[in-house]
Amino acid sequence: MSEPAHADIPTFDDILDAAERLRGVAVRSPLLQAPLLDALAGCRLLVKAEMLQRTGSFKLRGAWNRISRLNDAEKARGVLCYSSGNHAQAVAHAATVAGVSATVVMPATAPKLKVARCRAFGATVIQHEGDRRSMVARAEAMARAENRVLVPPFDDPFVIAGQGTVGLEMAEDLAARGLVPDAVLVPCSGGGLMAGVALAIRQRFPEAAIYAVEPERYDDTARSLAAGERVAITPPPNPFCDALGVPEPGAITFAINRALLAGSVTVSDDEVRRAMAAGFEHLKVVIEPGGAVALAAVLSGKVAVEGRTVAIVASGGNVDAATFAEAITGGA
Amino acid sequence: MSEPAHADIPTFDDILDAAERLRGVAVRSPLLQAPLLDALAGCRLLVKAEMLQRTGSFKLRGAWNRISRLNDAEKARGVLCYSSGNHAQAVAHAATVAGVSATVVMPATAPKLKVARCRAFGATVIQHEGDRRSMVARAEAMARAENRVLVPPFDDPFVIAGQGTVGLEMAEDLAARGLVPDAVLVPCSGGGLMAGVALAIRQRFPEAAIYAVEPERYDDTARSLAAGERVAITPPPNPFCDALGVPEPGAITFAINRALLAGSVTVSDDEVRRAMAAGFEHLKVVIEPGGAVALAAVLSGKVAVEGRTVAIVASGGNVDAATFAEAITGGA
Repeated sequence: MSEPAHADIPTFDDILDAAERLRGVAVRSPLLQAPLLDALAGCRLLVKAEMLQRTGSFKLRGAWNRISRLNDAEKARGVLCYSSGNHAQAVAHAATVAGVSATVVMPATAPKLKVARCRAFGATVIQHEGDRRSMVARAEAMARAENRVLVPPFDDPFVIAGQGTVGLEMAEDLAARGLVPDAVLVPCSGGGLMAGVALAIRQRFPEAAIYAVEPERYDDTARSLAAGERVAITPPPNPFCDALGVPEPGAITFAINRALLAGSVTVSDDEVRRAMAAGFEHLKVVIEPGGAVALAAVLSGKVAVEGRTVAIVASGGNVDAATFAEAITGGA
Repeated sequence: MSEPAHADIPTFDDILDAAERLRGVAVRSPLLQAPLLDALAGCRLLVKAEMLQRTGSFKLRGAWNRISRLNDAEKARGVLCYSSGNHAQAVAHAATVAGVSATVVMPATAPKLKVARCRAFGATVIQHEGDRRSMVARAEAMARAENRVLVPPFDDPFVIAGQGTVGLEMAEDLAARGLVPDAVLVPCSGGGLMAGVALAIRQRFPEAAIYAVEPERYDDTARSLAAGERVAITPPPNPFCDALGVPEPGAITFAINRALLAGSVTVSDDEVRRAMAAGFEHLKVVIEPGGAVALAAVLSGKVAVEGRTVAIVASGGNVDAATFAEAITGGA
């Protein structure tokens, strides 16, 4: 596999630049803490609440940082993306704000709420039957045929820098409270959020141990870190954590994550459901399955947190009502 | 009924003073906005997200502003309160932080989650069988017998000033975005939050029309505003909006609200459930029934909002999982 050129890896300055560009467009989401959640976790736990981000996930940051840089000719052509649903909503909304036409290609199995919201945000939605590789190939062919600009979901310097503003804000809010994180845990799929947050946290808190969290059986980053190179897996279809189904790390994102991560852990679907319930009870927020894996890792003891200061990302809240209801009631 | 002395009515400076005292203790909750919720409401809608407040409701603000002023002798005696559950959690947590013993008297019908959380926050919980008047009488007798300081739920200048910091933060965040609210809607029961927010908003945005929102059949403030004096009702037991069951406005709170409100509206339980579902889908937050009445009033067209800028309070998120699950799935 080809390694990314050094120029493709965003710098901390690129994240600061993205933050400027996102001012007034993205929400500066709060870093939540709850006494009873601290007691449950056995640590001081700070939760970056990106479900409160516009479009319901962090994805708006990267999408806007890319789409807002299109020139007039590119804007006239319109954009296209493939996505399990959160990047799609972000591209749809960012495109609408920028006055650009958007087509999004999504799996036929995507949560109904994500499909409906993409349409509501103004996109043309194509639902794809078949696995992720065939979806990507179809989207790339459509972009060429329709002459649209493809907005990558993660393996792009501007997208990574945009997601990095999550880490920048976490670092700023931690510093404002006089806190130094011992550990930082981030949901990981293609690795854009993970890489962006790692770049920002490493700059501000070089001693923090940074971990990727993946769902069991969707552990391509864990396998890649172990192998020292990108490994593609063949994951089972229809992940419960539908936002985290990418089968292989990105080239740029993995180059960053391999250099900066202390390690990675995986969590089970039941551990994710319990984390969603804890988010409901103690934080009063809606966390979707893929957004809850870092909280699940802390609450299920996958990393040593006892007595420490731990900062995590809850990355999104786009979940169907029935799925959320089942998670918080224990299926009762 | 006796009218409050002028000295009992908090000033805007008292709210600024409370804000200083709450710094580092209370969360500065975000003022949320979502494009799809704006589309649904037909206005620019700003939602003060007080379910994200420590203890899961705004009540921490008033409780801390009162309890943090106790002298050492009062602290040694401990505190006591009566509450449907949110003030009780706030008093429990504020007392624990201040190193003070707390007893809370709650209705036997209070949501299980509120009872469990009061205990988790460190209070001794007394569950009372019988109506609210008998609960209040029992709590007052207990406070005398045990020599504890009674922390009033709403009709107290320090409590009102503490809740007023909700309005102060709303006004600051609106101004920072260059927005001037046409209307402000606030959940109302005893009227402490309503009065505090009204004092702050009137100071900063004198032209805004300020409305109280109550559940149908628990409309003592509406009746009192119509009569020009405090009216006590005999509401049905076990309100769906369990946080809003007080049968009569407070003396101080009503003196403020009568002077500052443009009016009041009521909402049905089904309108509240739909608002909870909209909060789930569009804001990704957990709003309890009583906390959702202002959102319900906007979404059900109880006030004219078309094309306007409307700021509301979502006052809490302490709801049992089964109740929330039913609201977001439509009982399916």
